[in-house]
Amino acid sequence: MPVRGGLYDSPMHGVSIIPIEGIGDITEGDDVAASIADALDGAGLGVEPGDVLVVTHKIVSKAEGLTVEIADDAAYRELVASEALHVIRRRGDLVIAKTRHGYICANAGVDRSNTAAGTALLLPRDPDRSAHTIRLRLSRRTGVDMPVIISDTFGRPWRRGLTDIAIGVSGMAPILDLRGTSDMYGRVLDVTEVAVADELAAAADLVMGKATGIPAAIIRGAEVPAGSGRAADLVRPADEDLFR
Amino acid sequence: MPVRGGLYDSPMHGVSIIPIEGIGDITEGDDVAASIADALDGAGLGVEPGDVLVVTHKIVSKAEGLTVEIADDAAYRELVASEALHVIRRRGDLVIAKTRHGYICANAGVDRSNTAAGTALLLPRDPDRSAHTIRLRLSRRTGVDMPVIISDTFGRPWRRGLTDIAIGVSGMAPILDLRGTSDMYGRVLDVTEVAVADELAAAADLVMGKATGIPAAIIRGAEVPAGSGRAADLVRPADEDLFR
Repeated sequence: MPVRGGLYDSPMHGVSIIPIEGIGDITEGDDVAASIADALDGAGLGVEPGDVLVVTHKIVSKAEGLTVEIADDAAYRELVASEALHVIRRRGDLVIAKTRHGYICANAGVDRSNTAAGTALLLPRDPDRSAHTIRLRLSRRTGVDMPVIISDTFGRPWRRGLTDIAIGVSGMAPILDLRGTSDMYGRVLDVTEVAVADELAAAADLVMGKATGIPAAIIRGAEVPAGSGRAADLVRPADEDLFR
Repeated sequence: MPVRGGLYDSPMHGVSIIPIEGIGDITEGDDVAASIADALDGAGLGVEPGDVLVVTHKIVSKAEGLTVEIADDAAYRELVASEALHVIRRRGDLVIAKTRHGYICANAGVDRSNTAAGTALLLPRDPDRSAHTIRLRLSRRTGVDMPVIISDTFGRPWRRGLTDIAIGVSGMAPILDLRGTSDMYGRVLDVTEVAVADELAAAADLVMGKATGIPAAIIRGAEVPAGSGRAADLVRPADEDLFR
Protein backbone atom coordinates (compact mmCIF):
# COMPACT_ATOMS: atom_id res chain seq x y z
CA MET A 1 0.00 0.00 0.00
CA PRO A 2 1.55 3.30 -0.97
CA VAL A 3 2.35 5.82 1.71
CA ARG A 4 0.19 8.93 1.29
CA GLY A 5 2.07 11.68 -0.46
CA GLY A 6 5.05 9.41 -1.01
CA LEU A 7 7.30 9.90 -3.96
CA TYR A 8 6.17 6.78 -5.74
CA ASP A 9 2.46 7.51 -5.84
CA SER A 10 3.08 10.94 -7.30
CA PRO A 11 3.24 11.36 -11.07
CA MET A 12 6.49 13.25 -10.58
CA HIS A 13 9.84 11.60 -10.84
CA GLY A 14 12.22 12.25 -8.04
CA VAL A 15 15.32 11.11 -6.27
CA SER A 16 15.43 8.89 -3.18
CA ILE A 17 18.28 8.80 -0.70
CA ILE A 18 18.18 5.51 1.17
CA PRO A 19 20.41 4.97 4.22
CA ILE A 20 22.03 1.53 4.42
CA GLU A 21 21.58 0.43 8.00
CA GLY A 22 23.17 -2.58 9.61
CA ILE A 23 26.67 -2.37 8.13
CA GLY A 24 28.23 -2.69 11.57
CA ASP A 25 31.75 -1.89 12.62
CA ILE A 26 34.45 -2.26 9.98
CA THR A 27 38.02 -3.24 10.87
CA GLU A 28 41.23 -3.81 8.95
CA GLY A 29 40.94 -6.41 6.25
CA ASP A 30 37.13 -6.36 6.06
CA ASP A 31 35.55 -6.45 2.61
CA VAL A 32 33.52 -3.23 2.51
CA ALA A 33 31.57 -4.34 -0.56
CA ALA A 34 30.56 -7.61 1.12
CA SER A 35 29.53 -5.75 4.30
CA ILE A 36 27.36 -3.40 2.26
CA ALA A 37 25.83 -6.22 0.23
CA ASP A 38 25.08 -8.15 3.43
CA ALA A 39 23.40 -5.07 4.92
CA LEU A 40 21.32 -4.57 1.77
CA ASP A 41 20.26 -8.23 1.88
CA GLY A 42 19.47 -7.95 5.58
CA ALA A 43 17.22 -4.97 4.90
CA GLY A 44 15.59 -6.64 1.90
CA LEU A 45 16.72 -3.77 -0.26
CA GLY A 46 17.56 -4.64 -3.86
CA VAL A 47 19.86 -2.60 -6.04
CA GLU A 48 18.45 -1.23 -9.31
CA PRO A 49 20.09 0.00 -12.49
CA GLY A 50 20.63 3.74 -12.08
CA ASP A 51 21.37 3.52 -8.37
CA VAL A 52 24.50 5.21 -7.03
CA LEU A 53 26.30 4.09 -3.87
CA VAL A 54 27.84 6.70 -1.59
CA VAL A 55 30.22 5.41 1.10
CA THR A 56 31.92 7.55 3.72
CA HIS A 57 35.69 7.16 3.50
CA LYS A 58 35.84 6.21 7.18
CA ILE A 59 34.84 2.60 6.67
CA VAL A 60 37.02 2.38 3.57
CA SER A 61 40.05 3.72 5.46
CA LYS A 62 39.37 1.37 8.37
CA ALA A 63 39.13 -1.64 6.05
CA GLU A 64 42.35 -0.55 4.36
CA GLY A 65 44.18 -0.49 7.68
CA LEU A 66 44.69 3.27 7.82
CA THR A 67 43.99 3.59 11.53
CA VAL A 68 47.05 5.05 13.27
CA GLU A 69 47.71 5.10 17.00
CA ILE A 70 48.45 8.56 18.37
CA ALA A 71 49.72 8.99 21.90
CA ASP A 72 48.83 12.67 22.29
CA ASP A 73 48.13 15.95 20.52
CA ALA A 74 51.79 16.31 19.57
CA ALA A 75 51.67 12.94 17.83
CA TYR A 76 48.52 14.03 16.05
CA ARG A 77 50.21 17.20 14.82
CA GLU A 78 53.16 15.16 13.57
CA LEU A 79 50.80 12.83 11.74
CA VAL A 80 49.06 15.79 10.09
CA ALA A 81 52.45 17.17 9.05
CA SER A 82 53.45 13.84 7.52
CA GLU A 83 50.16 13.58 5.59
CA ALA A 84 50.44 17.15 4.27
CA LEU A 85 52.15 17.58 0.95
CA HIS A 86 52.02 21.33 1.39
CA VAL A 87 50.59 23.56 4.12
CA ILE A 88 48.30 26.21 2.59
CA ARG A 89 47.32 28.14 5.71
CA ARG A 90 47.87 27.80 9.43
CA ARG A 91 46.11 29.54 12.31
CA GLY A 92 46.54 28.27 15.84
CA ASP A 93 45.80 24.55 15.86
CA LEU A 94 44.10 24.70 12.47
CA VAL A 95 46.15 23.52 9.52
CA ILE A 96 44.75 23.74 5.99
CA ALA A 97 46.90 21.51 3.84
CA LYS A 98 47.05 19.93 0.44
CA THR A 99 47.16 16.15 0.55
CA ARG A 100 49.03 13.87 -1.84
CA HIS A 101 45.71 13.41 -3.68
CA GLY A 102 45.59 17.17 -4.31
CA TYR A 103 42.72 17.75 -1.88
CA ILE A 104 42.92 20.91 0.19
CA CYS A 105 41.36 20.33 3.58
CA ALA A 106 41.71 20.73 7.34
CA ASN A 107 44.40 18.64 9.05
CA ALA A 108 45.40 17.03 5.73
CA GLY A 109 42.39 14.76 6.08
CA VAL A 110 43.57 13.14 9.32
CA ASP A 111 40.43 12.37 11.27
CA ARG A 112 39.83 11.86 14.98
CA SER A 113 36.01 11.51 14.94
CA ASN A 114 34.38 8.10 14.83
CA THR A 115 37.68 6.38 15.49
CA ALA A 116 38.62 4.49 18.63
CA ALA A 117 40.23 6.50 21.45
CA GLY A 118 43.96 7.10 20.94
CA THR A 119 43.72 6.61 17.20
CA ALA A 120 43.30 8.71 14.08
CA LEU A 121 42.22 7.72 10.60
CA LEU A 122 43.97 8.64 7.36
CA LEU A 123 42.38 9.13 3.95
CA PRO A 124 42.52 6.15 1.57
CA ARG A 125 45.77 6.24 -0.39
CA ASP A 126 43.94 6.08 -3.72
CA PRO A 127 40.22 6.73 -3.13
CA ASP A 128 39.36 6.39 -6.85
CA ARG A 129 40.89 2.93 -6.82
CA SER A 130 39.07 2.07 -3.58
CA ALA A 131 35.78 3.13 -5.23
CA HIS A 132 36.62 1.02 -8.26
CA THR A 133 37.29 -2.07 -6.14
CA ILE A 134 34.03 -1.68 -4.20
CA ARG A 135 32.14 -1.17 -7.47
CA LEU A 136 33.54 -4.33 -9.08
CA ARG A 137 32.92 -6.49 -6.01
CA LEU A 138 29.36 -5.19 -5.58
CA SER A 139 28.68 -5.72 -9.26
CA ARG A 140 29.73 -9.37 -8.96
CA ARG A 141 27.53 -9.83 -5.94
CA THR A 142 24.41 -7.89 -7.05
CA GLY A 143 24.59 -8.18 -10.83
CA VAL A 144 24.20 -4.39 -11.09
CA ASP A 145 27.13 -2.19 -12.13
CA MET A 146 26.50 0.72 -9.79
CA PRO A 147 28.61 3.92 -9.71
CA VAL A 148 30.40 4.32 -6.37
CA ILE A 149 31.34 7.57 -4.62
CA ILE A 150 33.59 7.72 -1.56
CA SER A 151 32.78 10.83 0.47
CA ASP A 152 34.47 12.95 3.09
CA THR A 153 33.47 16.03 5.06
CA PHE A 154 35.28 19.22 4.04
CA GLY A 155 35.15 22.86 5.01
CA ARG A 156 34.92 25.72 2.55
CA PRO A 157 36.99 28.92 2.62
CA TRP A 158 34.18 31.47 2.68
CA ARG A 159 31.30 29.56 4.19
CA ARG A 160 30.67 28.28 7.68
CA GLY A 161 29.80 24.66 8.24
CA LEU A 162 31.02 21.56 6.45
CA THR A 163 29.54 19.56 3.60
CA ASP A 164 30.31 16.14 2.21
CA ILE A 165 32.12 15.95 -1.11
CA ALA A 166 33.39 13.16 -3.37
CA ILE A 167 37.00 12.08 -2.82
CA GLY A 168 36.71 8.82 -4.79
CA VAL A 169 34.57 8.01 -7.83
CA SER A 170 34.11 4.98 -10.08
CA GLY A 171 31.59 4.21 -12.81
CA MET A 172 30.45 7.75 -13.58
CA ALA A 173 31.79 11.10 -14.69
CA PRO A 174 32.01 13.29 -11.57
CA ILE A 175 31.19 16.42 -13.56
CA LEU A 176 28.20 17.05 -15.81
CA ASP A 177 29.56 19.00 -18.75
CA LEU A 178 26.91 21.31 -20.17
CA ARG A 179 29.22 23.14 -22.57
CA GLY A 180 27.27 23.92 -25.71
CA THR A 181 23.94 23.16 -24.00
CA SER A 182 21.20 25.75 -24.38
CA ASP A 183 18.97 27.06 -21.64
CA MET A 184 15.19 27.50 -21.80
CA TYR A 185 15.65 30.64 -23.87
CA GLY A 186 17.99 28.99 -26.36
CA ARG A 187 21.01 30.78 -24.93
CA VAL A 188 24.18 28.79 -24.31
CA LEU A 189 24.48 28.22 -20.56
CA ASP A 190 26.94 30.22 -18.45
CA VAL A 191 27.07 27.37 -15.97
CA THR A 192 28.94 24.75 -17.90
CA GLU A 193 30.18 22.24 -15.36
CA VAL A 194 28.11 20.84 -12.51
CA ALA A 195 29.95 18.87 -9.81
CA VAL A 196 27.30 16.14 -9.67
CA ALA A 197 29.48 13.76 -7.64
CA ASP A 198 29.83 16.41 -4.93
CA GLU A 199 26.07 17.06 -4.97
CA LEU A 200 25.42 13.32 -4.61
CA ALA A 201 27.86 13.15 -1.68
CA ALA A 202 26.15 16.13 0.00
CA ALA A 203 22.72 14.58 -0.58
CA ALA A 204 23.86 11.27 0.94
CA ASP A 205 25.05 13.08 4.06
CA LEU A 206 21.42 14.05 4.72
CA VAL A 207 20.77 10.43 5.75
CA MET A 208 24.21 9.49 7.04
CA GLY A 209 24.70 12.16 9.66
CA LYS A 210 27.80 12.49 11.80
CA ALA A 211 26.72 10.74 14.95
CA THR A 212 24.34 8.07 13.62
CA GLY A 213 26.92 5.56 12.45
CA ILE A 214 25.29 5.06 9.03
CA PRO A 215 28.27 4.95 6.66
CA ALA A 216 26.61 4.41 3.28
CA ALA A 217 23.54 5.29 1.24
CA ILE A 218 21.93 4.43 -2.07
CA ILE A 219 20.80 7.33 -4.25
CA ARG A 220 18.03 6.29 -6.61
CA GLY A 221 16.59 8.20 -9.55
CA ALA A 222 19.35 10.78 -10.04
CA GLU A 223 20.58 11.61 -13.49
CA VAL A 224 24.23 10.57 -13.32
CA PRO A 225 26.73 11.67 -15.97
CA ALA A 226 27.88 8.60 -17.88
CA GLY A 227 31.60 8.07 -18.20
CA SER A 228 34.59 6.80 -16.36
CA GLY A 229 36.03 9.82 -14.59
CA ARG A 230 37.82 10.01 -11.28
CA ALA A 231 37.25 12.22 -8.24
CA ALA A 232 40.73 13.53 -8.94
CA ASP A 233 39.09 15.29 -11.93
CA LEU A 234 37.25 17.46 -9.39
CA VAL A 235 40.47 19.01 -8.17
CA ARG A 236 41.02 22.35 -9.85
CA PRO A 237 44.45 22.42 -11.52
CA ALA A 238 46.88 24.80 -9.82
CA ASP A 239 47.12 27.00 -12.93
CA GLU A 240 43.34 27.66 -12.80
CA ASP A 241 43.36 28.24 -9.07
CA LEU A 242 43.14 31.84 -7.90
CA PHE A 243 43.10 31.01 -4.18
CA ARG A 244 46.10 28.96 -3.21
CA MET B 1 0.56 -0.61 -5.29
CA PRO B 2 4.07 0.08 -4.08
CA VAL B 3 6.84 0.37 -6.63
CA ARG B 4 9.29 -2.51 -6.22
CA GLY B 5 12.38 -1.42 -4.34
CA GLY B 6 10.93 2.02 -3.72
CA LEU B 7 11.82 3.94 -0.64
CA TYR B 8 8.41 3.59 0.92
CA ASP B 9 8.17 -0.17 0.87
CA SER B 10 11.56 -0.52 2.50
CA PRO B 11 11.84 -0.66 6.27
CA MET B 12 14.52 2.02 6.01
CA HIS B 13 13.77 5.68 6.39
CA GLY B 14 15.13 7.90 3.72
CA VAL B 15 14.91 11.26 2.06
CA SER B 16 12.94 12.04 -1.10
CA ILE B 17 13.69 14.91 -3.44
CA ILE B 18 10.59 15.72 -5.43
CA PRO B 19 10.76 18.14 -8.38
CA ILE B 20 7.87 20.58 -8.63
CA GLU B 21 6.88 20.56 -12.25
CA GLY B 22 4.45 22.94 -13.92
CA ILE B 23 5.48 26.21 -12.24
CA GLY B 24 5.74 27.92 -15.63
CA ASP B 25 7.47 31.15 -16.47
CA ILE B 26 7.66 33.77 -13.73
CA THR B 27 7.68 37.49 -14.48
CA GLU B 28 7.86 40.67 -12.42
CA GLY B 29 5.14 40.96 -9.82
CA ASP B 30 4.21 37.26 -9.84
CA ASP B 31 3.56 35.64 -6.48
CA VAL B 32 6.15 32.84 -6.34
CA ALA B 33 4.42 31.13 -3.41
CA ALA B 34 1.10 31.06 -5.27
CA SER B 35 2.76 29.71 -8.41
CA ILE B 36 4.40 26.93 -6.40
CA ALA B 37 1.17 26.12 -4.54
CA ASP B 38 -0.72 25.99 -7.85
CA ALA B 39 1.88 23.64 -9.31
CA LEU B 40 1.69 21.39 -6.23
CA ASP B 41 -2.10 21.31 -6.53
CA GLY B 42 -1.88 20.61 -10.26
CA ALA B 43 0.40 17.65 -9.57
CA GLY B 44 -1.78 16.39 -6.73
CA LEU B 45 1.20 16.67 -4.42
CA GLY B 46 0.42 17.55 -0.82
CA VAL B 47 2.86 19.18 1.55
CA GLU B 48 3.65 17.35 4.79
CA PRO B 49 5.12 18.49 8.11
CA GLY B 50 8.89 18.08 7.86
CA ASP B 51 9.04 18.97 4.17
CA VAL B 52 11.53 21.61 3.05
CA LEU B 53 11.06 23.74 -0.06
CA VAL B 54 14.09 24.64 -2.16
CA VAL B 55 13.57 27.36 -4.78
CA THR B 56 16.19 28.55 -7.22
CA HIS B 57 16.78 32.28 -6.86
CA LYS B 58 16.06 32.80 -10.56
CA ILE B 59 12.30 32.76 -10.23
CA VAL B 60 12.50 34.80 -7.03
CA SER B 61 14.67 37.45 -8.72
CA LYS B 62 12.36 37.52 -11.75
CA ALA B 63 9.29 37.98 -9.55
CA GLU B 64 11.07 40.75 -7.66
CA GLY B 65 11.77 42.64 -10.90
CA LEU B 66 15.53 42.13 -10.87
CA THR B 67 15.84 41.51 -14.60
CA VAL B 68 18.11 44.13 -16.14
CA GLU B 69 18.50 44.90 -19.84
CA ILE B 70 22.09 44.76 -21.03
CA ALA B 71 23.01 46.01 -24.49
CA ASP B 72 26.34 44.22 -24.79
CA ASP B 73 29.26 42.62 -22.95
CA ALA B 74 30.50 46.03 -21.81
CA ALA B 75 27.13 46.74 -20.20
CA TYR B 76 27.30 43.33 -18.52
CA ARG B 77 30.74 44.10 -17.10
CA GLU B 78 29.47 47.44 -15.79
CA LEU B 79 26.53 45.70 -14.17
CA VAL B 80 28.86 43.20 -12.49
CA ALA B 81 31.01 46.07 -11.24
CA SER B 82 27.99 47.86 -9.80
CA GLU B 83 26.81 44.68 -8.04
CA ALA B 84 30.25 43.97 -6.59
CA LEU B 85 30.94 45.38 -3.16
CA HIS B 86 34.56 44.31 -3.47
CA VAL B 87 36.48 42.45 -6.18
CA ILE B 88 38.38 39.52 -4.66
CA ARG B 89 40.13 38.14 -7.75
CA ARG B 90 40.11 38.90 -11.44
CA ARG B 91 41.46 36.87 -14.33
CA GLY B 92 40.52 37.75 -17.90
CA ASP B 93 36.74 37.98 -18.08
CA LEU B 94 36.30 36.19 -14.79
CA VAL B 95 35.56 38.36 -11.77
CA ILE B 96 35.24 36.83 -8.31
CA ALA B 97 33.53 39.40 -6.15
CA LYS B 98 31.88 39.83 -2.80
CA THR B 99 28.26 40.91 -3.04
CA ARG B 100 26.43 43.21 -0.65
CA HIS B 101 25.06 40.07 1.02
CA GLY B 102 28.62 38.95 1.77
CA TYR B 103 28.56 36.12 -0.78
CA ILE B 104 31.77 35.58 -2.71
CA CYS B 105 30.97 34.34 -6.20
CA ALA B 106 31.62 34.72 -9.91
CA ASN B 107 30.36 37.92 -11.56
CA ALA B 108 28.91 39.18 -8.26
CA GLY B 109 25.95 36.85 -8.84
CA VAL B 110 24.84 38.55 -12.08
CA ASP B 111 23.38 35.78 -14.22
CA ARG B 112 22.92 35.48 -17.96
CA SER B 113 21.60 31.87 -18.11
CA ASN B 114 17.89 31.17 -18.19
CA THR B 115 17.11 34.84 -18.75
CA ALA B 116 15.65 36.35 -21.92
CA ALA B 117 18.14 37.50 -24.58
CA GLY B 118 19.62 40.93 -23.87
CA THR B 119 18.95 40.67 -20.15
CA ALA B 120 20.73 39.61 -16.98
CA LEU B 121 19.34 38.69 -13.61
CA LEU B 122 20.52 40.03 -10.26
CA LEU B 123 20.42 38.25 -6.92
CA PRO B 124 17.47 39.06 -4.64
CA ARG B 125 18.30 42.11 -2.54
CA ASP B 126 17.52 40.27 0.70
CA PRO B 127 17.21 36.54 -0.02
CA ASP B 128 16.49 35.65 3.62
CA ARG B 129 13.55 38.04 3.54
CA SER B 130 12.40 36.59 0.19
CA ALA B 131 12.50 33.10 1.70
CA HIS B 132 10.55 34.34 4.70
CA THR B 133 7.83 35.87 2.51
CA ILE B 134 7.46 32.69 0.43
CA ARG B 135 7.30 30.62 3.60
CA LEU B 136 4.55 32.74 5.19
CA ARG B 137 2.44 32.80 2.01
CA LEU B 138 2.81 29.05 1.46
CA SER B 139 1.96 28.40 5.09
CA ARG B 140 -1.29 30.36 4.71
CA ARG B 141 -2.16 28.45 1.56
CA THR B 142 -1.14 24.91 2.58
CA GLY B 143 -1.55 25.03 6.36
CA VAL B 144 2.00 23.67 6.74
CA ASP B 145 4.82 25.88 8.00
CA MET B 146 7.59 24.60 5.74
CA PRO B 147 11.21 25.82 5.87
CA VAL B 148 12.22 27.56 2.63
CA ILE B 149 15.68 27.68 1.06
CA ILE B 150 16.55 29.93 -1.88
CA SER B 151 19.43 28.42 -3.84
CA ASP B 152 22.03 29.58 -6.30
CA THR B 153 24.84 27.89 -8.20
CA PHE B 154 28.33 28.80 -6.98
CA GLY B 155 31.86 27.76 -7.83
CA ARG B 156 34.46 26.70 -5.29
CA PRO B 157 38.09 27.87 -5.11
CA TRP B 158 39.83 24.49 -5.24
CA ARG B 159 37.32 22.27 -6.95
CA ARG B 160 36.09 22.13 -10.52
CA GLY B 161 32.39 22.25 -11.24
CA LEU B 162 29.64 24.15 -9.50
CA THR B 163 27.17 23.14 -6.81
CA ASP B 164 24.00 24.71 -5.51
CA ILE B 165 24.13 26.39 -2.11
CA ALA B 166 21.66 28.26 0.11
CA ILE B 167 21.57 32.04 -0.31
CA GLY B 168 18.26 32.54 1.52
CA VAL B 169 16.78 30.58 4.42
CA SER B 170 13.64 30.84 6.54
CA GLY B 171 12.12 28.50 9.12
CA MET B 172 15.21 26.46 9.96
CA ALA B 173 18.74 26.84 11.26
CA PRO B 174 21.03 26.59 8.23
CA ILE B 175 23.76 24.94 10.29
CA LEU B 176 23.50 21.80 12.41
CA ASP B 177 25.58 22.50 15.47
CA LEU B 178 27.09 19.29 16.86
CA ARG B 179 29.32 20.97 19.43
CA GLY B 180 29.41 18.77 22.48
CA THR B 181 27.91 15.81 20.61
CA SER B 182 29.70 12.49 20.94
CA ASP B 183 30.51 10.08 18.15
CA MET B 184 29.97 6.31 18.16
CA TYR B 185 33.02 5.88 20.36
CA GLY B 186 31.91 8.49 22.90
CA ARG B 187 34.46 11.00 21.69
CA VAL B 188 33.39 14.59 21.11
CA LEU B 189 33.08 15.15 17.36
CA ASP B 190 35.75 17.07 15.45
CA VAL B 191 33.15 18.03 12.88
CA THR B 192 31.00 20.42 14.81
CA GLU B 193 29.03 22.36 12.25
CA VAL B 194 27.29 20.84 9.24
CA ALA B 195 25.98 23.21 6.58
CA VAL B 196 22.68 21.38 6.21
CA ALA B 197 21.03 24.17 4.19
CA ASP B 198 23.81 23.93 1.61
CA GLU B 199 23.46 20.13 1.50
CA LEU B 200 19.71 20.48 0.98
CA ALA B 201 20.30 22.99 -1.84
CA ALA B 202 22.81 20.63 -3.50
CA ALA B 203 20.42 17.71 -3.14
CA ALA B 204 17.58 19.71 -4.72
CA ASP B 205 19.78 20.51 -7.70
CA LEU B 206 19.82 16.77 -8.50
CA VAL B 207 16.21 17.11 -9.70
CA MET B 208 16.24 20.72 -10.85
CA GLY B 209 19.07 20.60 -13.36
CA LYS B 210 20.30 23.55 -15.32
CA ALA B 211 18.44 23.08 -18.62
CA THR B 212 15.20 21.46 -17.45
CA GLY B 213 13.40 24.55 -16.24
CA ILE B 214 12.35 23.00 -12.93
CA PRO B 215 12.89 25.82 -10.43
CA ALA B 216 11.79 24.22 -7.16
CA ALA B 217 11.76 20.95 -5.25
CA ILE B 218 10.36 19.50 -2.06
CA ILE B 219 12.76 17.58 0.18
CA ARG B 220 10.93 15.10 2.37
CA GLY B 221 12.28 13.11 5.29
CA ALA B 222 15.44 15.09 6.00
CA GLU B 223 16.42 15.94 9.54
CA VAL B 224 16.33 19.72 9.50
CA PRO B 225 17.92 21.75 12.31
CA ALA B 226 15.15 23.60 14.16
CA GLY B 227 15.57 27.31 14.63
CA SER B 228 15.21 30.59 12.90
CA GLY B 229 18.58 31.27 11.31
CA ARG B 230 19.38 33.05 8.09
CA ALA B 231 21.51 32.05 5.09
CA ALA B 232 23.65 35.04 6.02
CA ASP B 233 24.78 32.90 8.99
CA LEU B 234 26.52 30.64 6.44
CA VAL B 235 28.90 33.41 5.45
CA ARG B 236 32.19 33.02 7.26
CA PRO B 237 33.06 36.24 9.10
CA ALA B 238 36.04 38.04 7.60
CA ASP B 239 38.10 37.57 10.77
CA GLU B 240 37.77 33.77 10.50
CA ASP B 241 38.51 33.75 6.78
CA LEU B 242 42.00 32.66 5.76
CA PHE B 243 41.37 32.97 2.02
CA ARG B 244 40.23 36.45 1.12
